[in-house]
Amino acid sequence: MATKHLFLLAGDGIGPEAMAEVKKLISAMNDKLGSGFATDEGLVGGCAYDAHGAAISDADMDKAMAADAVLFGAVGGPKWDAVPYEVRPEAGLLRLRKDMELFANLRPAICYPALAASSSLKQEVVEGLDILIVRELTGGVYFGEPKQIIDLGNGQKRGIDTQVYDTFEIERISGVAFELARTRKNHVTSMEKRNVMKSGVLWNEVVTQTHKARYSDVKLDHMLADAGGMQLVRWPKQFDVIVTDNLFGDMLSDIAAMLTGSIGMLPSASLGAPDVKTKKRKALYEPVHGSAPDIAGKGIANPIAMIASFAMCLRYSFGMVEEADRVEAAIAAVLDQGLRTKDILSEGMTEVGTVEMGDAIIAKF
Amino acid sequence: MATKHLFLLAGDGIGPEAMAEVKKLISAMNDKLGSGFATDEGLVGGCAYDAHGAAISDADMDKAMAADAVLFGAVGGPKWDAVPYEVRPEAGLLRLRKDMELFANLRPAICYPALAASSSLKQEVVEGLDILIVRELTGGVYFGEPKQIIDLGNGQKRGIDTQVYDTFEIERISGVAFELARTRKNHVTSMEKRNVMKSGVLWNEVVTQTHKARYSDVKLDHMLADAGGMQLVRWPKQFDVIVTDNLFGDMLSDIAAMLTGSIGMLPSASLGAPDVKTKKRKALYEPVHGSAPDIAGKGIANPIAMIASFAMCLRYSFGMVEEADRVEAAIAAVLDQGLRTKDILSEGMTEVGTVEMGDAIIAKF
Ligand SMILES: CC(C)[C@H](C(=O)O)[C@@H](O)C(=O)O
Ligand SMILES: CC(C)[C@H](C(=O)O)[C@@H](O)C(=O)O
Repeated sequence: MATKHLFLLAGDGIGPEAMAEVKKLISAMNDKLGSGFATDEGLVGGCAYDAHGAAISDADMDKAMAADAVLFGAVGGPKWDAVPYEVRPEAGLLRLRKDMELFANLRPAICYPALAASSSLKQEVVEGLDILIVRELTGGVYFGEPKQIIDLGNGQKRGIDTQVYDTFEIERISGVAFELARTRKNHVTSMEKRNVMKSGVLWNEVVTQTHKARYSDVKLDHMLADAGGMQLVRWPKQFDVIVTDNLFGDMLSDIAAMLTGSIGMLPSASLGAPDVKTKKRKALYEPVHGSAPDIAGKGIANPIAMIASFAMCLRYSFGMVEEADRVEAAIAAVLDQGLRTKDILSEGMTEVGTVEMGDAIIAKF
Repeated sequence: MATKHLFLLAGDGIGPEAMAEVKKLISAMNDKLGSGFATDEGLVGGCAYDAHGAAISDADMDKAMAADAVLFGAVGGPKWDAVPYEVRPEAGLLRLRKDMELFANLRPAICYPALAASSSLKQEVVEGLDILIVRELTGGVYFGEPKQIIDLGNGQKRGIDTQVYDTFEIERISGVAFELARTRKNHVTSMEKRNVMKSGVLWNEVVTQTHKARYSDVKLDHMLADAGGMQLVRWPKQFDVIVTDNLFGDMLSDIAAMLTGSIGMLPSASLGAPDVKTKKRKALYEPVHGSAPDIAGKGIANPIAMIASFAMCLRYSFGMVEEADRVEAAIAAVLDQGLRTKDILSEGMTEVGTVEMGDAIIAKF
């Protein structure tokens, strides 16, 4: 079996602690199953800035480009709040997304039965929730030019960002959403603000055309993004797959994550287009939670989102569906067993730290 | 007492039904209290398009500009889904906001005790909730240029919108937020995406400066808008006043509204700057809910948001604080009495229609 090259970018805050548990899992899989993973590690975010003044070095970018998959922890923290915009921790993540052309960000919002009670929403509203947000990740207001602050004189400045979408970008992300919907409940909801934004008008038009031309078997709905946010809070189970742009996706996927009552549990995958010859696609996997500097280094971070991100990696980058299922089942099993990190602790459950949680999952695997 | 000129733009869908109840209340106030309101009516949205091919006529714009306050219902519906972008129903509302320079949109999200159980969130999470979203309303991606769709040839188009904020715009909206916070819990949370958007960097900078220069007695926090959305869902009572831009405000205020379990209840005020001489400010009051075409004309729409919008009008445009309090108390009283329109109906309550609800509130007033 060919070696599978993983490039690990643990980043800042709780990133390294969470990544450490994944490293143990990778070793276990190599030992027990001969999975053939080879890992290399680099720096991203604040730690990269501290080491060489950029949020990711060119050398590490090259390694990310060459790897079969990148596992990413989290970036940022108060320590780097005042660094220049161009080298702020997030710039490392944004460069990875852009240079690797990871246009499709898959964010499942799944409510684990064992955690349904810990959501701020009523149990019946979130129990059994299983939605997938497909967020466009390399376009829109994140990368459009001009993006600048102009000094107008007289103490006045002007901040400008540009939201841009081309037909092909909308076509390919909606294609991903429709394909994934076919493996699920066959229902896509597209969200934009076509009543205010021209990019929203184009978004709506292209999604509709793509649907008609290639995916008319899938049920398609359109919703304004503000109404979509409301509906997510009101009755999230009405959704199966949601497809939306970079900025709306940022907001909506965080809200969807919070509904599940356990943002420390949720993974994501960022995928490029399949290579024409090899069919392989560049990919980066990262937990939805951030670097949580307030709890970093205390050994109490929840490693589940990071481990679940590795499960997505097994599924999407290596076609190791059975192994991915087993990792996910192991996570569900330790939760059923009553183990909880502090962020998801509730009455009558057993509090464990990062390492114990990782060990328990690996033991069940 | 000088005549108070109200210009009523009921609009489409349930707008006219809801407005009819406010008209009854205005008459009652004129009769009982000699309040001296004079009303005139115009067309906005789809009905204006049907009448004269524009989402609002110049003549009605003139009346809106001249009035002491505008009461606005709702616009839009499937009937006008295919009308050209420039004359779509929303264009009427956007023109009112822009031409009247209504830069400050105040959206209270209040959870009425009688309705706390009907939220999709747990009762303890929303009970007693009272937050105020202060949304910038005349700038940002709603109005920035270029805003267009370009034909690139080869079946490719490009949709472009521009997010623009100038220092003075951020200064004046944050001033409104700080002033209002002083009349409340003295706490402002500013939300942007400074980690991705240059307008967010400027937003953060100007809010910080404005705070330091003039409002350092108010507690100020900054939050990324995506994290802010999450926190609204997780524990909304941590907020007092939230100040944010036009697009984030659109999303976040709708989510905040939905938390209360009763979007049919929530009013909003859109205010201009006080005139240098007269101190009067242009103002438009509108319910947060939309035109709800599916239930229009059935006599079941909830008129409370429209009536509560009129209460805001009494408070902010005419300084009629006592009367505003009485309208709000009347709303709370009919809810305590168990009267409910269909959208807020729950076990054991008495279902009433639009007219009965309006009558009951006026009777309590
Ligand atoms: C860290 C930040 C740049 C990023 C984003 O805005 O995309 C994050 O919020 C996310 O959702 O992955
Ligand atoms: C109708 C629409 C243009 C409007 C907006 O996006 O501002 C609405 O959603 C609102 O929040 O008032």
